Amino acid sequence: MRTVDIIHKKRDGGQLSPEEIAFLVNGYTNGSIPDYQMSAWAMAVYFNGMTARETADLTLAMARSGDQADLSSIPGVKVDKHSTGGVGDTTTLILAPLVAAAGIPVAKMSGRGLGHTGGTIDKLEAIPGFRTERTKEQFLEQVRAIGLAVVGQSGNMTPADKKLYGLRDVTATVESVPLIASSIMSKKIASGADAIVLDVKTGRGAFMKSLEAAVELAEAMVAIGSEVGRETIAVITNMDEPLGPSIGNALEVLEAIETLRGSGPAELTELCLELAAHMVVLGGKAADVAEGKRQVKALLASGAALEKLRQMIAAQGGDAGVVDDTQRLPQARCRFAVQATAGGCVAGIDAESLGLTAMLLGAGRATKDDRIDLAVGLKLTKRVGDEVREGETIAELYMSGDDPDTVRHMTERAASAFTIRPEPVEKPKLVYAVVTRAGVQYYN
Amino acid sequence: MRTVDIIHKKRDGGQLSPEEIAFLVNGYTNGSIPDYQMSAWAMAVYFNGMTARETADLTLAMARSGDQADLSSIPGVKVDKHSTGGVGDTTTLILAPLVAAAGIPVAKMSGRGLGHTGGTIDKLEAIPGFRTERTKEQFLEQVRAIGLAVVGQSGNMTPADKKLYGLRDVTATVESVPLIASSIMSKKIASGADAIVLDVKTGRGAFMKSLEAAVELAEAMVAIGSEVGRETIAVITNMDEPLGPSIGNALEVLEAIETLRGSGPAELTELCLELAAHMVVLGGKAADVAEGKRQVKALLASGAALEKLRQMIAAQGGDAGVVDDTQRLPQARCRFAVQATAGGCVAGIDAESLGLTAMLLGAGRATKDDRIDLAVGLKLTKRVGDEVREGETIAELYMSGDDPDTVRHMTERAASAFTIRPEPVEKPKLVYAVVTRAGVQYYN
Repeated sequence: MRTVDIIHKKRDGGQLSPEEIAFLVNGYTNGSIPDYQMSAWAMAVYFNGMTARETADLTLAMARSGDQADLSSIPGVKVDKHSTGGVGDTTTLILAPLVAAAGIPVAKMSGRGLGHTGGTIDKLEAIPGFRTERTKEQFLEQVRAIGLAVVGQSGNMTPADKKLYGLRDVTATVESVPLIASSIMSKKIASGADAIVLDVKTGRGAFMKSLEAAVELAEAMVAIGSEVGRETIAVITNMDEPLGPSIGNALEVLEAIETLRGSGPAELTELCLELAAHMVVLGGKAADVAEGKRQVKALLASGAALEKLRQMIAAQGGDAGVVDDTQRLPQARCRFAVQATAGGCVAGIDAESLGLTAMLLGAGRATKDDRIDLAVGLKLTKRVGDEVREGETIAELYMSGDDPDTVRHMTERAASAFTIRPEPVEKPKLVYAVVTRAGVQYYN
Repeated sequence: MRTVDIIHKKRDGGQLSPEEIAFLVNGYTNGSIPDYQMSAWAMAVYFNGMTARETADLTLAMARSGDQADLSSIPGVKVDKHSTGGVGDTTTLILAPLVAAAGIPVAKMSGRGLGHTGGTIDKLEAIPGFRTERTKEQFLEQVRAIGLAVVGQSGNMTPADKKLYGLRDVTATVESVPLIASSIMSKKIASGADAIVLDVKTGRGAFMKSLEAAVELAEAMVAIGSEVGRETIAVITNMDEPLGPSIGNALEVLEAIETLRGSGPAELTELCLELAAHMVVLGGKAADVAEGKRQVKALLASGAALEKLRQMIAAQGGDAGVVDDTQRLPQARCRFAVQATAGGCVAGIDAESLGLTAMLLGAGRATKDDRIDLAVGLKLTKRVGDEVREGETIAELYMSGDDPDTVRHMTERAASAFTIRPEPVEKPKLVYAVVTRAGVQYYN
């Protein structure tokens, strides 16, 4: 088998065999296929696409390119969840204890990641004493004991995906649906998921700017799940504004605790119930989404979900008291109000720009070696559709210092993320559609 | 300027600026742009093409990427000629003295090259004593003195093209008209041509298998010439069979001498007169192709063209006596007849397969370090359209040994290149069309 012939075939619109795809992925992982052939192939895929079968083969080959989690010692259907790149997305911190409370085993390995705020692992480290580094045995033992563990990723998972993603980033081959879909799904499959619920964001703050593009990506991932025997459903959600009001590590933990108490922000709560309901159905604990939603609502109301979080924090060495007293979380030294520059109605909030502001405040990493300030960030007090008066507080910055120039610069940055119009603006939809094997169901 | 943005722009169908193209070519030549970005860009060009302006900019950037010949000390219009990959193509050995005799200065640097037979330089070395290594001053001095020199290429010409060509070969990006056209034209421009006549082959033995593809490539090269101020015309010629009957180094020198004597093979003579006529017109020595053809015919008939070859051989230290006594050329030790396996009419002769047979006999190099046997090769005695009887000689092999197994294998190989049909076959056309700035003129 020659790499050049495989590139040629894809360039001419042919369908690659499972053997050809495995040859490519294995050769690229072990270094026998050079970057320059892989990038030419990726560009040919950008233009000619891949069939569902090819995409599934690529996903499996990448999932098998390194270490794979073995969750077979944990009884039950392991349902994982993935959000495609949102800003201020606290859902994992809420969903993990919520579905664990419903009897779905949650054995989650998360990354730190670069970006606006830290990854789930960084956020959990805002809880005093919380330990995210566990051995494989400690991790599995905890899930078997309390049904829930969220730990840092260890080992060498999906090296093919890491290498290919890095290459795509510098060769203008990122925006290819089969390549994006297989990248996401390979990681979920390598981490041992039996079934997967995807939260695909669309809108200004998301990678997929249009609903059509988000549905296309969702369909590709659902098809992969179907091909490889891991049932997958995707919920298409709005990212024209940040999902929850908080952006920052400790701030998001606080928001998660409030949501698990039943007093969280309406939109965040609603989306978590929707996603959790699908997870409960895939996990075989409810017959349909309506029943699943009733179940998870009850688990919030009874405090069972919050109790599950408390158990996890205790099991991982953290101060479980934060669940009752959120003042034990890291606190920012000062707060500054961001004021509306005009009166009217909030027409849009640029999630990506606010994410960048949070990063500049110290909440995220620009490079792998940056240290995160867990306490800082920002919290929105207005959402799209809200009326505001000029000078009214629309957000609050949580900062580590009060240098007047920095404060002025950051409040201006944050204010400019808001679009305010004179005319009334309708509240945006939260969930646009659900994509399953049966097709796309658009929400009214 | 970022390479990834340039790839992105081309991927999305944009037109690159001259600065962007120069950035790519210079960065790739000096190593600051890696292979993996260049191959992704080449694949994007494969799919989205390039405008005439972009192609011309790429050509110039590659022509300027290394040494360039300075022919300004030679008076007159320097007209160069290029054939796109034929088998058994002796035209340079005939055209160079023929147009030099017409007063067009010929200052040609040729390569050795890999392939079925050696390059022009290897063929000339079949003439005893002939020296192809000359200093730049010797070379220019000879052209000023006798109007003709053909020497080996020295220095580092078009390194960008060499590097890109090697990359395209292993990334399935060879078959792109703007990339093929700019590769050929950059070498002609770097070697100092003021005007260029192209012989674009089409048919079974050629790179461009269809007439449409050959015309498209010709148009792209003529457009480049027009954009960069080097008038270029292209003659589209048949390669459904080898042009001349001889394939092999000394055998082709012999054929060239016979043609310059006026007793060469009809098709080879006809095509050389056609190409030479265009060169004479571009060189300003004739008003139109008909007048040019009358001139060069007269130069063949008078012996002036042969005399010019004699002068060049003498000037470059060779035995000019070969012009009168071709027995002084290297002679193969034995000859074997190739016999028709059936009676009928020759319907096709696979030039590429015969080229490979010649290479296996020792006439060409498979790798850079192979030594060429100048005497060996083969000579066809039948052409497409000729009637043959079973067992009649259709070709002769010129071999260095007479090992029966090798002889049997080689004669069988050669015989299988001939397609013989019971029904009569028409003689194929030699010249299909001429492409100039004014458009395509198809020949009847």
